[in-house]
Amino acid sequence: MNKLASSNRIRIISTIYEGLKELEISRIEFEGPEIAIYVKKPAMAQEKIDLVRKIAKELKKRLVIKADPSVRKDKDETKEIIKNEVPQEAQISDIKFDDDLGEVLIKAKKPGLVIGKGGSIQQRIFSDTFWRAVIIREPPIRSRILDNIMEHLYSETEYRSDILHSFGERIHRELLFKDRYVRITALGGFMEVGRSAVLVETPESKVLLDVGLNPSVNGGEKLFPKLDIDQVDLEDIDAVVITHAHMDHSGMIPYLFKYGYEGPVYTTSPTRDIMALMQLDGLDIAEKEGRPGPYSAKEVRKELLHTITLDYEEVTDIAPDIRLTFYNAGHILGSAMAHLHIGDGTHNIVYSGDFKYARTRLLDRANSDFPKVDTLIMETTYGVQEQSNREESEAQLMNVINNTLSRGGRVLIPVLAVGRGQEIMLIINYMMKNKMIQQAPIYVTGLVDEVTAIHNAYPEMLSREVREEILYKDENPFTSELFKRIDGFKEDIATGEPSIILATSGMLNGGPAVEFFKTMAPDPKNTIIFVSYQAQGTLGRKVRDGQSPVSIINRDGRVENIEVRMERKVIDGFSGHSDRNQLVSFLRNINPRPRNVILNHGEAESISRFSSFIRSDRGRIGYRPNVYTPSILDSLRVA
Amino acid sequence: MNKLASSNRIRIISTIYEGLKELEISRIEFEGPEIAIYVKKPAMAQEKIDLVRKIAKELKKRLVIKADPSVRKDKDETKEIIKNEVPQEAQISDIKFDDDLGEVLIKAKKPGLVIGKGGSIQQRIFSDTFWRAVIIREPPIRSRILDNIMEHLYSETEYRSDILHSFGERIHRELLFKDRYVRITALGGFMEVGRSAVLVETPESKVLLDVGLNPSVNGGEKLFPKLDIDQVDLEDIDAVVITHAHMDHSGMIPYLFKYGYEGPVYTTSPTRDIMALMQLDGLDIAEKEGRPGPYSAKEVRKELLHTITLDYEEVTDIAPDIRLTFYNAGHILGSAMAHLHIGDGTHNIVYSGDFKYARTRLLDRANSDFPKVDTLIMETTYGVQEQSNREESEAQLMNVINNTLSRGGRVLIPVLAVGRGQEIMLIINYMMKNKMIQQAPIYVTGLVDEVTAIHNAYPEMLSREVREEILYKDENPFTSELFKRIDGFKEDIATGEPSIILATSGMLNGGPAVEFFKTMAPDPKNTIIFVSYQAQGTLGRKVRDGQSPVSIINRDGRVENIEVRMERKVIDGFSGHSDRNQLVSFLRNINPRPRNVILNHGEAESISRFSSFIRSDRGRIGYRPNVYTPSILDSLRVA
Repeated sequence: MNKLASSNRIRIISTIYEGLKELEISRIEFEGPEIAIYVKKPAMAQEKIDLVRKIAKELKKRLVIKADPSVRKDKDETKEIIKNEVPQEAQISDIKFDDDLGEVLIKAKKPGLVIGKGGSIQQRIFSDTFWRAVIIREPPIRSRILDNIMEHLYSETEYRSDILHSFGERIHRELLFKDRYVRITALGGFMEVGRSAVLVETPESKVLLDVGLNPSVNGGEKLFPKLDIDQVDLEDIDAVVITHAHMDHSGMIPYLFKYGYEGPVYTTSPTRDIMALMQLDGLDIAEKEGRPGPYSAKEVRKELLHTITLDYEEVTDIAPDIRLTFYNAGHILGSAMAHLHIGDGTHNIVYSGDFKYARTRLLDRANSDFPKVDTLIMETTYGVQEQSNREESEAQLMNVINNTLSRGGRVLIPVLAVGRGQEIMLIINYMMKNKMIQQAPIYVTGLVDEVTAIHNAYPEMLSREVREEILYKDENPFTSELFKRIDGFKEDIATGEPSIILATSGMLNGGPAVEFFKTMAPDPKNTIIFVSYQAQGTLGRKVRDGQSPVSIINRDGRVENIEVRMERKVIDGFSGHSDRNQLVSFLRNINPRPRNVILNHGEAESISRFSSFIRSDRGRIGYRPNVYTPSILDSLRVA
Repeated sequence: MNKLASSNRIRIISTIYEGLKELEISRIEFEGPEIAIYVKKPAMAQEKIDLVRKIAKELKKRLVIKADPSVRKDKDETKEIIKNEVPQEAQISDIKFDDDLGEVLIKAKKPGLVIGKGGSIQQRIFSDTFWRAVIIREPPIRSRILDNIMEHLYSETEYRSDILHSFGERIHRELLFKDRYVRITALGGFMEVGRSAVLVETPESKVLLDVGLNPSVNGGEKLFPKLDIDQVDLEDIDAVVITHAHMDHSGMIPYLFKYGYEGPVYTTSPTRDIMALMQLDGLDIAEKEGRPGPYSAKEVRKELLHTITLDYEEVTDIAPDIRLTFYNAGHILGSAMAHLHIGDGTHNIVYSGDFKYARTRLLDRANSDFPKVDTLIMETTYGVQEQSNREESEAQLMNVINNTLSRGGRVLIPVLAVGRGQEIMLIINYMMKNKMIQQAPIYVTGLVDEVTAIHNAYPEMLSREVREEILYKDENPFTSELFKRIDGFKEDIATGEPSIILATSGMLNGGPAVEFFKTMAPDPKNTIIFVSYQAQGTLGRKVRDGQSPVSIINRDGRVENIEVRMERKVIDGFSGHSDRNQLVSFLRNINPRPRNVILNHGEAESISRFSSFIRSDRGRIGYRPNVYTPSILDSLRVA
């Protein structure tokens, strides 16, 4: 890290001092990607708001005016002022202070009412107390994990403030090299699904896009992306960017901190919460099973303190020559596409992460408009298959459920804790409410409460329909009385009256779904429905492909052979991934059109067939980009 | 570097101690790629020779028996013994001792007579003196550079012995990684000609194949290969392998030492001598022109001490998991193809360097038989053009020279100091001796004497005809009385009687050739003949392509416009590079056939057209390898 102020930083600081001297600036801090201006006359800030915006635009930086500690109001007095200014219907449940960053955290059931129209109340709180209000939603369901995250973040404010300063200094360091290039290296999740990781390298900076684990292997070198090469030195990584919370995209982060990473993790707020939840849950399971955890809760806590959350379409400096912007990816709650603007427009990269280029009940369709795109790195999970359309899929699901229930059978749907689980809950809730399927108990296992709480905490990121149900109607579909939460496998449910069972994990590679499957498989009245991607090597893939008997290794190491007589059904229209048509239509619609398309996150056959398809006229994408299909450890210079 | 003896080394040492204990081993040293066994009973070594060979084969190592210093004969006595045992016709000119390595260097005009039939005399010297005889040829022409090289090497024996030990320890270090991969990174000379450099990377080791400069640019980032990336840390480079002495393959070596490289350089003996000559000559020119040298003679001397010379087809460990073998490349004296055997046969790479897959007067055709080949990295200078055949080319040359001389004109042939210069000298000497061209003075500029001396020092590496002329006849073509050496540009020769002028440099990008061209260009009686490759951006390329006038920037920075009225003629059949037919025929004949073919060392058009050609049926190479055309900073994982 460059300890001397760079000419870049000196230029920024002098511009701000010169432009805003009337506010009596006491100090300027680079707090992560933001520049905080601490002033002794914060009351004037509102008056000078246009000037602040002008300077921000000129510098292309995010400026935040904060009050010098000497002028901030007393905390008790501030609490009183807040309670007076915010209407009671907002239902404030907690108020916390961060002295180091000059922020007051306000937790409320209706955060919109704390913010006020056009931010008016939030601004008034600042002018009257000189504390900067950070407002978060208190979800209708209480979430232990969200509580813990907030508790942790607000108990470590000094550490947090220190690392934000060090991130800020690093981001605004001097540019050193005249030479310009942009190089992309495949570290994991290329010609395969799992352990996603991409290194983006310029002469100045290095950024990791996703750092996942391969959930379908139990150990060995294919579990991790290839971070043990000399090109990746954790000290030199400027930023880790996470596109969504599934373990194959985020599961490696605690390891990075375990092995010495000290930098920032950029992601959306729901992704931060969900990934912490899933990592901590993974530790719980390991503990219960008496296995040593792959990392400890300490590293997850460090991850949380090092995470900087960004909203969609918020442009942020993450390295001296790289700006990051997230866009909705439509895959799961909080999922994002990452746009990197490198140099002064030298090169623009879009990394799609996992994305759904179609509306689902839960989420809006992924974004396809970007300011600039030269290189697109795109997932290709379904490069070969076309999925059934929504109506067909829902009709199939309805029929299969009805047939199974009528014959006295039970329906098992393996779901990921986050993603398809919620989508299927929305559909089944809708169908049962509208009497399209017979009444029957719906059992849901896994982290349902926590995950539902997180969904409820971020309604603005859900589809319009669900958002409105949660915010304005009394019909929050996630808290529907039709769902019965169960804590894990229950023998009497697996063999009991006709029912619908949604159980994790989604690929039958662990979790209560495996126990349910073992008990239910021999009974031909039962049905298993696969609604999501089944990776190579997983039990789910074997069952889906018609194997019988299938071998399962028990916890005590014994091999059990299970005869599969239950009905097996694949309904692919609910996938959170784009199918081939959606991938093609994304390539057709993406604006502007990329010069290079790099395919990743697909099995080798899917990627090679899809690349031939879009290179040929049959693809009809309407232009001819360079299409690359790199393997792990290949590097491509794209600029 | 691993300071503890690796289990690998311990195994080797114990095998040797066990097997050869009767020789009374005093120590075992890893001297570069060789393992030297110092013994107190060297007299028994000859007797045990089969046992030594058996152990060497078992260990796959090069073993050398040396005498413990305590038992070596006195130096004066040794000199007497040598003079008695070697026949006088050998013409010994110098005897030097290396106490550190236990070697006696014998310089002689006829080294074969020092070696004796089947090595008999060399062996007898060892049994009678206990000094290991290293024999080198005293060339018929005295060479200042060869004298200096030997002087230098034998005045720094302690340093040399120390670094050989450190190389040896490093080569035989422990293998650390279970993971296996082989990755090739394009650093320079991909999709272009110039600054050749390839990084070969395994989890254990890193090797650079060639490190050249781009002779057609005068500075800026395109002068050097991309060694300033994190993947290349000079401390981590195990070996630099140089395929031939031209600056675009070897010109960067002194810089490596300037910036901290401390490892070995592997090449052939003639390449070591020629590259040192050319580097030192470059420094002389810079000094004369009052420019600061890009490096100093100090780094060239360090390069010499760090160079380990290998014969063709001599297998050598250069890293714990890499063995190197050179094969004749037919391009210039000492040019080699590099074969890398990685792991226990995990992967085999052939890096062709510049090669000529056809006989020339000077050299034999390049090798195309290898023990194993998985990946071939092949030059593609002439991926588009076919060259005329030898007879046609020689006929053309004869006609052009005769026509020009008849009309009272002068012939200018720009040549590289090493390579085409010698080939053209051989042809013109032959033609004039056989009265195929008119008698006229032949002027030769440049480093002719030195280069000729080096050619004379290594006759065993030249074509059979030339070797025999040098060794057995009194008609050494390089010392023919027809050639008149000149020191640089001479106005009276450029405007004088009809003559043939061979002048450096070969692409008119410096040297006396430029001055001759400027003076001779306006006279339509004169002719310029291009016999070698003209890189993009060089004056030679512009003149060859028919530009007139051409602009030349003088040393004082003034731009001169030269009208080109002289005849311009391209005769491509003398090239040291394979033309398209020869490249294809090499691909057809290479045994075994490679799975991957990576094309380098060609302009983008040449490489892309050649890759399409061999991918199509028209190429007729008879198999379908994966053909890759990487750009600089692309990496390919090949295993």
